[in-house]
Amino acid sequence: MTDLSRRLFDELESLVLIDPHTHINPHAAASKTLADIMGYHYYTELAHSAGMPKSYIADPDISPKERVGRLVEKLGALSNTIQVSWLMEIAREFFDFQDEMITPQNWEKLYDGALAKMQQPDWEQQVLTHSKLEAVFLTNDFDDPLEGFDTQKYIPCLRTDDLVFHFEKPETRARLAKATGTEVTSAESLRSAIGQLFTHFTQKGARACAISIPPSFAPTKVTVTEAKNVVERVAAGSPLTLEQSALLSRFVFWTLAEFCSEHALPFDLMIGVNRRVYEEGVFQGQDLFDMRVSLIQYKELFNAFPKVTFPISVLGTTSNNELVSYAWIFPNVVTNGHWWYSNIPTYIEVDTRSRLEAVPRTKQVGYYSDMYKLEFALPKFRMYRRVLAKVLADDFVLGRGWSETKAIEFGRQILRGNVETIFRV
Amino acid sequence: MTDLSRRLFDELESLVLIDPHTHINPHAAASKTLADIMGYHYYTELAHSAGMPKSYIADPDISPKERVGRLVEKLGALSNTIQVSWLMEIAREFFDFQDEMITPQNWEKLYDGALAKMQQPDWEQQVLTHSKLEAVFLTNDFDDPLEGFDTQKYIPCLRTDDLVFHFEKPETRARLAKATGTEVTSAESLRSAIGQLFTHFTQKGARACAISIPPSFAPTKVTVTEAKNVVERVAAGSPLTLEQSALLSRFVFWTLAEFCSEHALPFDLMIGVNRRVYEEGVFQGQDLFDMRVSLIQYKELFNAFPKVTFPISVLGTTSNNELVSYAWIFPNVVTNGHWWYSNIPTYIEVDTRSRLEAVPRTKQVGYYSDMYKLEFALPKFRMYRRVLAKVLADDFVLGRGWSETKAIEFGRQILRGNVETIFRV
Amino acid sequence: MTDLSRRLFDELESLVLIDPHTHINPHAAASKTLADIMGYHYYTELAHSAGMPKSYIADPDISPKERVGRLVEKLGALSNTIQVSWLMEIAREFFDFQDEMITPQNWEKLYDGALAKMQQPDWEQQVLTHSKLEAVFLTNDFDDPLEGFDTQKYIPCLRTDDLVFHFEKPETRARLAKATGTEVTSAESLRSAIGQLFTHFTQKGARACAISIPPSFAPTKVTVTEAKNVVERVAAGSPLTLEQSALLSRFVFWTLAEFCSEHALPFDLMIGVNRRVYEEGVFQGQDLFDMRVSLIQYKELFNAFPKVTFPISVLGTTSNNELVSYAWIFPNVVTNGHWWYSNIPTYIEVDTRSRLEAVPRTKQVGYYSDMYKLEFALPKFRMYRRVLAKVLADDFVLGRGWSETKAIEFGRQILRGNVETIFRV
Repeated sequence: MTDLSRRLFDELESLVLIDPHTHINPHAAASKTLADIMGYHYYTELAHSAGMPKSYIADPDISPKERVGRLVEKLGALSNTIQVSWLMEIAREFFDFQDEMITPQNWEKLYDGALAKMQQPDWEQQVLTHSKLEAVFLTNDFDDPLEGFDTQKYIPCLRTDDLVFHFEKPETRARLAKATGTEVTSAESLRSAIGQLFTHFTQKGARACAISIPPSFAPTKVTVTEAKNVVERVAAGSPLTLEQSALLSRFVFWTLAEFCSEHALPFDLMIGVNRRVYEEGVFQGQDLFDMRVSLIQYKELFNAFPKVTFPISVLGTTSNNELVSYAWIFPNVVTNGHWWYSNIPTYIEVDTRSRLEAVPRTKQVGYYSDMYKLEFALPKFRMYRRVLAKVLADDFVLGRGWSETKAIEFGRQILRGNVETIFRV
Repeated sequence: MTDLSRRLFDELESLVLIDPHTHINPHAAASKTLADIMGYHYYTELAHSAGMPKSYIADPDISPKERVGRLVEKLGALSNTIQVSWLMEIAREFFDFQDEMITPQNWEKLYDGALAKMQQPDWEQQVLTHSKLEAVFLTNDFDDPLEGFDTQKYIPCLRTDDLVFHFEKPETRARLAKATGTEVTSAESLRSAIGQLFTHFTQKGARACAISIPPSFAPTKVTVTEAKNVVERVAAGSPLTLEQSALLSRFVFWTLAEFCSEHALPFDLMIGVNRRVYEEGVFQGQDLFDMRVSLIQYKELFNAFPKVTFPISVLGTTSNNELVSYAWIFPNVVTNGHWWYSNIPTYIEVDTRSRLEAVPRTKQVGYYSDMYKLEFALPKFRMYRRVLAKVLADDFVLGRGWSETKAIEFGRQILRGNVETIFRV
Repeated sequence: MTDLSRRLFDELESLVLIDPHTHINPHAAASKTLADIMGYHYYTELAHSAGMPKSYIADPDISPKERVGRLVEKLGALSNTIQVSWLMEIAREFFDFQDEMITPQNWEKLYDGALAKMQQPDWEQQVLTHSKLEAVFLTNDFDDPLEGFDTQKYIPCLRTDDLVFHFEKPETRARLAKATGTEVTSAESLRSAIGQLFTHFTQKGARACAISIPPSFAPTKVTVTEAKNVVERVAAGSPLTLEQSALLSRFVFWTLAEFCSEHALPFDLMIGVNRRVYEEGVFQGQDLFDMRVSLIQYKELFNAFPKVTFPISVLGTTSNNELVSYAWIFPNVVTNGHWWYSNIPTYIEVDTRSRLEAVPRTKQVGYYSDMYKLEFALPKFRMYRRVLAKVLADDFVLGRGWSETKAIEFGRQILRGNVETIFRV
C-alpha cells in the first residue's frame, strides 16, 4: 500500500457503519465457539473442495471443538484464499493470535482463548464496538415474528425466496397461513396475505424486501386474474406444470414489487444463483451460477415500478458491466455490494473502479458483509476498504487530482451515507 | 502518472487527429451555448438517473440558460463520473474556468463567458485547432444531400440503421424514394435504390458505411429472389410477420455489405445495443444492452465478404475478448474504439491492453469520440490518450523493453495512422 | 518489474518443470529449421490476418527457408503482439540474435545460424536443459502406438476429440478397428474398444485423457442401451440425424469419463472452441469461439464422477469467473492453465489473480505451453512466470504480508508441485 492509500484507508477504517445485508440471527448474533466461525460455509466448502469428505466435516456426533480441529487439518491447502485471510484477521483482532497460521499444533490454544472471550457476557457488544458497527440488516423469513430483539440495531428485512420459488411446498403455505391467519385459497387471498406480511414487517421497522434469483428468471406482470387458476390449483394441492409453476413465481414476485411500491420499501435483487448444482456438497456449499444472465430480463420490472428502488447484486463479475450501465440509466437501479463469487479483491477492484467512475455517487451501496456471525464484518469490510482506498487513491487523487478530503468524503458516502439515504435508516 | 507515462502522454497529445466516428452536424459543428454541451445525453441521462425528473430536464419552454441552470443542480451527485470530468475539462480548456466544480453559485459566469466565446465567428475553427483535429467523420442519414460543407474536413459516412431496421416504416420508404428518385416496388428496385445511395455517398467522399445492431441480429445471405415476396408486401403497405421482418432486415443488411464490397467502403459495425429499454428515459438515454451476444453471429458475413473491412465496436467490455480474437484471425475484422458503455477508463484500459498485445498493430483503430459537438473531442481523446500512455509505458517500455520512440510510434499508428490506411482518408 | 517481482521471478525461473499439455511429436520434438518455429500457427494466422495471402504463406512448393523469408515480410505489422515477443525471445535465447527485430535484412543470418544449431545431434536435449524441462505431456491420437520414445520424458495423453465428435467418419472407425482389433458393431463393442484404448494408454504411462469441446456441448449420461440403435446405425454406415449424432457424442464422452474413473486418469476438458469458423484461414488458424458457454453444462458430469479429476481450461477470459467458482466448490474440478485466446498477459493476470485468491492452492495447475516444438516452452512459461511473480509480489507479499519464501513456495506448487500430485507423475 502506498502512503496515500494508507492514509485513505485509515480514514475509511474510522467510519462507523451500518451493514446493509447480513444473515445475522439477532438472538445469537456473535459466535459462541470458534466452530461458529470456522463452520462458515466458506471454510467447510473449501475444505471439502480440497478433499475433506463431507461426512468428516459435517459429522453430527462431534463437538464444536473437534469440528474445528478437523477443519484445521485442511487449512494448509486453503492458506492462499482470501477467505482464510478473513479467518486470520479475526484470530488476530479478536483473540490475540500471533502465529502466522492456524495449524494442528496451535489451534487448541486459539480455540480455548476464543471460547473464554466469547463467554464474556458483553461479547456481542464488544464485537460490534470493535468492528465499528452501529446496525446490521437481517435476512428474515417471511414468518419471522421479529420479536425479542432491538430492531434499531438489527434491522428487519423481508426475505422472499420461499414465497416466490417454493410456494408450491405445503410447508411454505402452512407457514404463511400461520403467520398471517389467512388461508390462501385464491390469487386474491394470496395477495392479501402478502400484504399482511408487508404491514407486519414495516411496522417492525423493516427497511428492505430481498430475494435471490436464478439466472433463468425473468419477471413479468401477472395479474390476479391471470394467476387465478394456478393459485387455486396449488391451494387444492394439485401439481403444477413447469409453466404454471413459473407463472406462479412471476405472480408472487410482481405482487411483492407492488407492495414494495406501496410501502416505499427497496427491493434487493440478488441475481444469478443456481441452487443445488453440487448436490453432494456441504451445507450452503452447493450453489453456483450460469453467467448467461442479463439485466434485460428485468426491463419490464424496472419500467413498471419507477418508485421502487432496486439495489442490485450480481453473482458474477461478468454481469457488472451491465449493472453499471443499468444503474447509470435507470433512476431506480442501484449498485449493491459485491456478492459471493464476485466478492474477492480481484473482482471487487475492477467492479468498484467501474462503478465509481460511471454511476452517480448517490446510487452506490459499496459493500455489505453477508455474514452469519458478527465477527466477520471486520475482515470483510476491511478487505473492501483496502480496495476502495486503492481505487480512490489511484483513480481520483492521482488520476483526477482530487483532494484527499474530497476522496474520503466520496468513500464515506459509498460506505455509509448511501445506506442511510437509500434504505432510509 | 509516472514520468514515463507523462512523457508518452505529452507526445500522444501533440498528434493531430482524424476522428473516425462522430455525430457532428457539419452545419453546426461547435456549440452555440453551454446548453449544447450540457445537453449531451450523458449529462441529461445521468441527472435523470440521479433523480431529476425528465419533465424538468426536457421542458420545452425553457431557455438554454435555464436548462443549464437546472442540470447544474444535479452535478454534485455526478461529480464522480468520468463524464463530468469531460465537462470540467471543457470548462477549463475552452472557457478559463478555474473553480473545482460547477455549482449553482458559479455556473452563470461560466455560461456567459462560454457564450461570448462561442459567439466569436471563428469559434468552430478555434475548437478544431485547439483540439488538434484535422477532420472528423460524420454520421449521415441515408438521405442526406451532403451539401454545404467541406467534405474534406467533415467526412461523410453512410448510416444505415433506418434502412435495415425501419424499412417497414412508410417515412423511411418515402425518404428513400425522395433521395433516390426510385420508388421501391420490388427487391430489385430496393437493391437498386441502395446502390444509388452508395454512388451518391462515395461521390461525396464518404469513407465508411455504418450501423448499430441489436444483440439478437445475426446476418445471413438473403438473395433478391428470397426477398421478393417480403419487399413486395412492404411496398404494398401490408404488415409483416416477425419472421418476414427479420428476413427483410437481413436482406437489406446483406445488400449493404455487397455494395461496401463493390465500393471498397469499410462497414462499421457497432454491435450490441438494445433500443428503448428504459422507455421513460430522456432523449438518447433509453438504450441498454444484453451481454449475451457473440461475434459468432457474424461468421457467415465475415467469410462472405473478404474484401470488406469491418471496423467493429462492441458495447460491453465482456465482448472485447471475442473482438480481440476475431480481429486476430479474420483479416477483414478490425478493432474500433471504445463504445458507449465500455467507454470508461476501467474498461478502456483492459480492452486496450489486450488489443495492443494480441491484434496486429495495423488493424486497430484506437479511438473515436462519438461526439455531437466539437468541444468533446478534446476531453474524450485525452481520456483515451492517458490510458494509452499508461499501457504503452507499463506493457511495452517497462514490460518489454521497447524504446520510448518505438512506443510513441505505435501509439501514433493506433491513434492516427490506422485511420488513414483503414478508411483510406 | 519491481525489485521484489524480479527476485520472485528469478526464483520461479530456477524451477525445473513438467509441462502438462503440449502437442510435441516425441519423434521430432525440437525444430529442424526456423520454419518449424515460424510455421507455428500463431505466426501464419497473424501474418494472414495482417494481410498476407494464405496461398503465399502455405505455398507447398517453397523451401523452409523461403517460407521464413515470406513470413518475415509481415513481422513488422505484428511486432506488438505477445506472440512475436516469444519469437524474439527464442531468437535471443537459443540463437544469439542481437538485433531489436527480425527484418528482411537480417533474417537470413538468423536462419542459417539457427540451422547450424538445430543440426547439432543433441539439440533436443540442449533445448530441454536450457528450458529447464524435465518432461512434457503429449497429445496422442487414440491410435498412437506410443512406441519408440521415452515415455518418462514424453508422457502420453489420450486425446479423444475424434472419438467423441467424429466417430461417424469411416476413417475414425477404421483407425479404431486397427488400433484395437475390435470392429465396432454395437454400443457394447464400442465401449469395449474404448476400454482397450485406456488399457493400452495407461500401460504406456499415460497420465491424462483430454478433449477440446465446442460451446454447445453439454454432456449427459447415455447408457449402452440408449446408444444401441445409434451405434448400430453408424456401424452399418447409415447417416445420423443431428439428434442421433449428438447422442452418439454424449455416449462416447460419458464412456470416456467412466474409463477415466476406472483407470484413475484425470480428464482434461478444454472448453469452448468452435472449429472452422474462418474457413479460408490458414492451417490451425480457423477456430474461434462463442463466449456464451457455461460450466453449468457440466453439472451432471461433475456430480456423476466424483473420483475423476477434471483439469479445466476455458477459451475465453469471460469464463474464468465461473471456472474459479466451480473449482472452489467441486472437489473434482481443477483450474488448468491459460488456453489459446486467453493466453495473453492481460487475461493471464486477472485470471491468475482470481485463482490464486479463491481456489485451494492444491487445485491449480498454473500453466502449460500447448507448444508444438520444444523451443516454445521457454518464452511461454517465462511470460507466465512474469505475471505470476507480479501477482505473488503485489497480492501476497505486499498485499497480505507474506514472506518471500512463502510466496515462492506457493509459486512452486502452482508451477510444478500440483502437476505431480494432480497427474500423479
